[in-house]
Amino acid sequence: MMKKKVAIVGASGYSGEELVRLLMQHPHVELTAVTSRQSAGLTVGQVFPKFAGHAAARSLRFTEPNAELLSKQAEIVFLALPHGVAAEFAVPLINAGCVVIDLSADFRLKSAECYKEFYGHEHPAPELLPKSVYGMPEVYRSEIKGAILIASPGCYPTSILLPVLPLLRAKLIKPQGIIADSMSGVSGAGRKAELDYLFCECNESVRAYGVPKHRHLSEIEEQMSLAANEKVTIQFTPHLIPVNRGIHTTLYLAPSEHFSSAAEAEALNAKIAACYAKAYGNEPFVRVLESKALPDTKNVTGTNTLELAWRLDTRTGRLIVLSAEDNIVKGASGQAVQSMNILCGFPETAGLL
Amino acid sequence: MMKKKVAIVGASGYSGEELVRLLMQHPHVELTAVTSRQSAGLTVGQVFPKFAGHAAARSLRFTEPNAELLSKQAEIVFLALPHGVAAEFAVPLINAGCVVIDLSADFRLKSAECYKEFYGHEHPAPELLPKSVYGMPEVYRSEIKGAILIASPGCYPTSILLPVLPLLRAKLIKPQGIIADSMSGVSGAGRKAELDYLFCECNESVRAYGVPKHRHLSEIEEQMSLAANEKVTIQFTPHLIPVNRGIHTTLYLAPSEHFSSAAEAEALNAKIAACYAKAYGNEPFVRVLESKALPDTKNVTGTNTLELAWRLDTRTGRLIVLSAEDNIVKGASGQAVQSMNILCGFPETAGLL
Amino acid sequence: MMKKKVAIVGASGYSGEELVRLLMQHPHVELTAVTSRQSAGLTVGQVFPKFAGHAAARSLRFTEPNAELLSKQAEIVFLALPHGVAAEFAVPLINAGCVVIDLSADFRLKSAECYKEFYGHEHPAPELLPKSVYGMPEVYRSEIKGAILIASPGCYPTSILLPVLPLLRAKLIKPQGIIADSMSGVSGAGRKAELDYLFCECNESVRAYGVPKHRHLSEIEEQMSLAANEKVTIQFTPHLIPVNRGIHTTLYLAPSEHFSSAAEAEALNAKIAACYAKAYGNEPFVRVLESKALPDTKNVTGTNTLELAWRLDTRTGRLIVLSAEDNIVKGASGQAVQSMNILCGFPETAGLL
Amino acid sequence: MMKKKVAIVGASGYSGEELVRLLMQHPHVELTAVTSRQSAGLTVGQVFPKFAGHAAARSLRFTEPNAELLSKQAEIVFLALPHGVAAEFAVPLINAGCVVIDLSADFRLKSAECYKEFYGHEHPAPELLPKSVYGMPEVYRSEIKGAILIASPGCYPTSILLPVLPLLRAKLIKPQGIIADSMSGVSGAGRKAELDYLFCECNESVRAYGVPKHRHLSEIEEQMSLAANEKVTIQFTPHLIPVNRGIHTTLYLAPSEHFSSAAEAEALNAKIAACYAKAYGNEPFVRVLESKALPDTKNVTGTNTLELAWRLDTRTGRLIVLSAEDNIVKGASGQAVQSMNILCGFPETAGLL
Repeated sequence: MMKKKVAIVGASGYSGEELVRLLMQHPHVELTAVTSRQSAGLTVGQVFPKFAGHAAARSLRFTEPNAELLSKQAEIVFLALPHGVAAEFAVPLINAGCVVIDLSADFRLKSAECYKEFYGHEHPAPELLPKSVYGMPEVYRSEIKGAILIASPGCYPTSILLPVLPLLRAKLIKPQGIIADSMSGVSGAGRKAELDYLFCECNESVRAYGVPKHRHLSEIEEQMSLAANEKVTIQFTPHLIPVNRGIHTTLYLAPSEHFSSAAEAEALNAKIAACYAKAYGNEPFVRVLESKALPDTKNVTGTNTLELAWRLDTRTGRLIVLSAEDNIVKGASGQAVQSMNILCGFPETAGLL
Repeated sequence: MMKKKVAIVGASGYSGEELVRLLMQHPHVELTAVTSRQSAGLTVGQVFPKFAGHAAARSLRFTEPNAELLSKQAEIVFLALPHGVAAEFAVPLINAGCVVIDLSADFRLKSAECYKEFYGHEHPAPELLPKSVYGMPEVYRSEIKGAILIASPGCYPTSILLPVLPLLRAKLIKPQGIIADSMSGVSGAGRKAELDYLFCECNESVRAYGVPKHRHLSEIEEQMSLAANEKVTIQFTPHLIPVNRGIHTTLYLAPSEHFSSAAEAEALNAKIAACYAKAYGNEPFVRVLESKALPDTKNVTGTNTLELAWRLDTRTGRLIVLSAEDNIVKGASGQAVQSMNILCGFPETAGLL
Repeated sequence: MMKKKVAIVGASGYSGEELVRLLMQHPHVELTAVTSRQSAGLTVGQVFPKFAGHAAARSLRFTEPNAELLSKQAEIVFLALPHGVAAEFAVPLINAGCVVIDLSADFRLKSAECYKEFYGHEHPAPELLPKSVYGMPEVYRSEIKGAILIASPGCYPTSILLPVLPLLRAKLIKPQGIIADSMSGVSGAGRKAELDYLFCECNESVRAYGVPKHRHLSEIEEQMSLAANEKVTIQFTPHLIPVNRGIHTTLYLAPSEHFSSAAEAEALNAKIAACYAKAYGNEPFVRVLESKALPDTKNVTGTNTLELAWRLDTRTGRLIVLSAEDNIVKGASGQAVQSMNILCGFPETAGLL
Repeated sequence: MMKKKVAIVGASGYSGEELVRLLMQHPHVELTAVTSRQSAGLTVGQVFPKFAGHAAARSLRFTEPNAELLSKQAEIVFLALPHGVAAEFAVPLINAGCVVIDLSADFRLKSAECYKEFYGHEHPAPELLPKSVYGMPEVYRSEIKGAILIASPGCYPTSILLPVLPLLRAKLIKPQGIIADSMSGVSGAGRKAELDYLFCECNESVRAYGVPKHRHLSEIEEQMSLAANEKVTIQFTPHLIPVNRGIHTTLYLAPSEHFSSAAEAEALNAKIAACYAKAYGNEPFVRVLESKALPDTKNVTGTNTLELAWRLDTRTGRLIVLSAEDNIVKGASGQAVQSMNILCGFPETAGLL
């Protein structure tokens, strides 16, 4: 198979670094350009010593970002840029015929108004919104195939939507009253020199933030609304915990059918199991845990797998679903590569196992 | 003031160690005995090098636990033992005239049946249950004063009850549907040689456990039921995170009155603020945060303070309350010493600031 | 006893924060002023929620640093400022009659040339150098008593000098060839927004830095030279490890007398034990470990104690001495308060146990 | 290429787990058996959820260790067992015609007496010692090729020997007086339920151990003696730090030639650079850092690379060499797989990049 030429814009952050790792060892692509203002001129191996063992890391040099040049160097361009900035790069790249896989929030919403409400400024390229596909392979695999612009989902949304969407679609849970309580590792804050993310400010600390209206709510609710076929509003609380990587989400859900006896619980359990088996039985990157196991971020960090488990509580009538993922892999760069694999017709797990 | 003689049974675990620290530096007590099967014969300074700077730590030696002897050595005995075992020690000590402050779960419930349901065995001393006082000073200060048996609350229950009880009593929230999502440091699992709590199994990991029926639910629900004057059933999910100390709890509550406009939210906010001001305005160990601050365990570890904050979410109509405490201090040993201060008529903050 | 009025300039860093903690709870002083450009106007409790339980923390407000004003507010002023800046504040304060306890490196050296060699700029106030006392109580207690300017030692130097100086003075080790290998927690880098000290850059990482010529060498070698009565040059390698607090130092020393048999080792051991017993047997803040115990930072963090142990290696003929301290307490703010206690005639352990 | 059948005995510890990971994804081998007493009957995916994404992990089940059976299931058997136990398994496997790659210390020494001195018991199979090859590919590549018994080096020895051996062989340093100061992550202690390795006992702690006579000295000194052609005795101090993985070693060495001027230092620097370039210029798993970079464990964890850097100190006349590696990969399982690749004629980096 001929190798596809790919580039990464904004490769010096944590998501960019992970894209470099995944794409450099990918069997079907050639990483032809990486950009970063502050690292321009340095080789990949100099910026990321961890990768210096790869021949490509010793020869490939960071450059200043330049859309025109990039469009000649690569067929597929990954954007690992802050929101707002990403859209500015996407426009000329798409016009020049590149496929863009954007890891920012810029093209995740269908509604420019919703974007403005949650991100606080006008959408920089609303004309592209109808063309973008939400890059969640388990949900939009067929749409991803022919896409020219893929909006790779956020880390929290991935950890929430993958467990919830199948239940919503199967009408096993009520669409209203959903609560998502999440904990994220510090890499989720990005590689930014801010006091709040110093080692001594995060170690031996746990704290909530962005309560009650975190930006990620916009894409979570849009996707849930589509699945439920009604407007969904949820509760979401993110917390920062002292790990480098990993997101754990605990979801509090209301089953559509009442249960209180053990027999009713068992019957409902079987329906939920069947729902997840149908949704994810053949998915390479979603692991539904069996028996007594509960998700643990240490079992998924460094992998593109999201694991999930659930429990019915006969005391409260609630369904508790728990998930764990690597926020930088399945929650960002790994999922973006999975979308690229689908888009290009590569085996979906290429470079990801 | 004449110094009270106090002893600690089971002083080699994390709660016991913290009791040693607090009581050794306490201005109004003399620590006369510490027991531990595995440490018998060693001085406090040998077992806990951290305390070796105290003269008492160099002279006081651990002994085998012996209730008869203890009753002669101390007027007040703290039990830092596993549940089930604690009750066996409490009986002879109380019969010999000691006051017992028990950090286990053995005397926290009024109902021996409920104890059996959650702890899996018959209560070892049901005749003492009516005599025990739930040692939460902010709620039971007057009952603590004359008590002979104080059941010091669990770490999770403290982090949940202090934020919730005033709201329940003031009928500002509905008693049903309460959700408590908690994260605890690893010291909460005790000083036990188990694989699950090895450094490499906890570091870079976060996971839920005890889902959905954790033992602490029994005392949480009993106390909430008393405050609400109706039977309360709640949802509670504990998670283990890689910090030594600290519990963070996020509570999802339903206000009794509807709000959706900013004005309605502001009115309700004022009522909640007034409720907490009334409950905790004069409490030395509960800090209600103002303005934009949210609880952070690093601001309370090593102290006997619980901090809390709340947010109204006009999008969902819910009240979110967050709390942080040190699970070993306010969640265990510090609260026990606070109860002792009340019981003995010492200044309530003695040895705790 | 009348309370002394004290102030802290530069109180928003980690050493400043620890000074606030120690001085606010000190029985013989009153903290009358704290300064910090970025925190001016806020109360101590707002900047450091951890201390909000103290009444003083709720009333005392940060101000802009102003030497003239400070000299009226306090008799003793602690400077927790970067080197270079500290000297500028010291001059007017001393001229106005204040005693200055400086935690920076500005007055630790007797030689302005050596300062220039290691710090890269002219000394800002060389006329004060002869007046300053190196604030290591175990060595300079009598000089501290009448001082007007105390240069509190660096964190690494404290962890190295306390174990080595008695051996040098007793001529038990050769003054040349000393190697000090140290590891420090991240708080040693200060509260600075730099990428290198982000949680994700420090967690799961260990690295050396400042090899081979760290600035602290200047004061270490000056003090060792004074003790040995000859010019001493040492090897020093600092490493950064993922803990908030704590310095561990391993020293490789050459005993003056040869030993190879067990009997010779035992005889030398006895001399070393006697040497340390003489130096530190009555010192409240140096703990010489017995038997098999080795220093562990977790046994000293949060305390003003340095612990040390030693081993003779009959295979190599070397003496290994190991020490552990809290870099922010004994290595900075605690030691400074200890000096203040001596200076003011307070009990030396006041506010430090 | 026909796939080689391989097995792992003792696969439930950290080294065993890493062998499973490396061998399951290796392109030229098939993992046919994994043994572990406590995990017998479970699939690899059940014991290590992290690997459950691999088809092999869902089908392959742990069995009780049985040498006879293993010799039929595999051509190459990896032993990840405690020392002493490993030798007992090696004998029947070798007799049955298997190649054994042993990760324990049992076959690393040429001398059974030295083994007894350092390990405290008679060597269980001294007849095999002459047949074993020390599995350090950069040193013994040609011997590994035809070996039937490979003793894979210890984690500390790898971090010390790779930096030192080329200098010793080139006579650039004096063979006596070498000091190695190392820090290891907690996985080095194995997956053992012991209090010392609990999260709360390791987190926020750093401590030395095994001072002054650690067992690994035996193989370090044997290999150095071979390289120097004289008996070498070194100083070695291991420390435990709160990271999961990684060893950092700082070496204090005495260059054979004197240097003090900048010009002399530069000349010596060039010789050292040439020495390392000759030794490691073509080695895939040793990275000699350039310019100002110093080794950092976070740049090597998860990889089979050891990185090293050096500094000449004109003040002391010493050469400081620093190295970093992943103790479980290059320090154990990765290096063992590298040896297997050489032994089998696979590309040396197969399955390791």
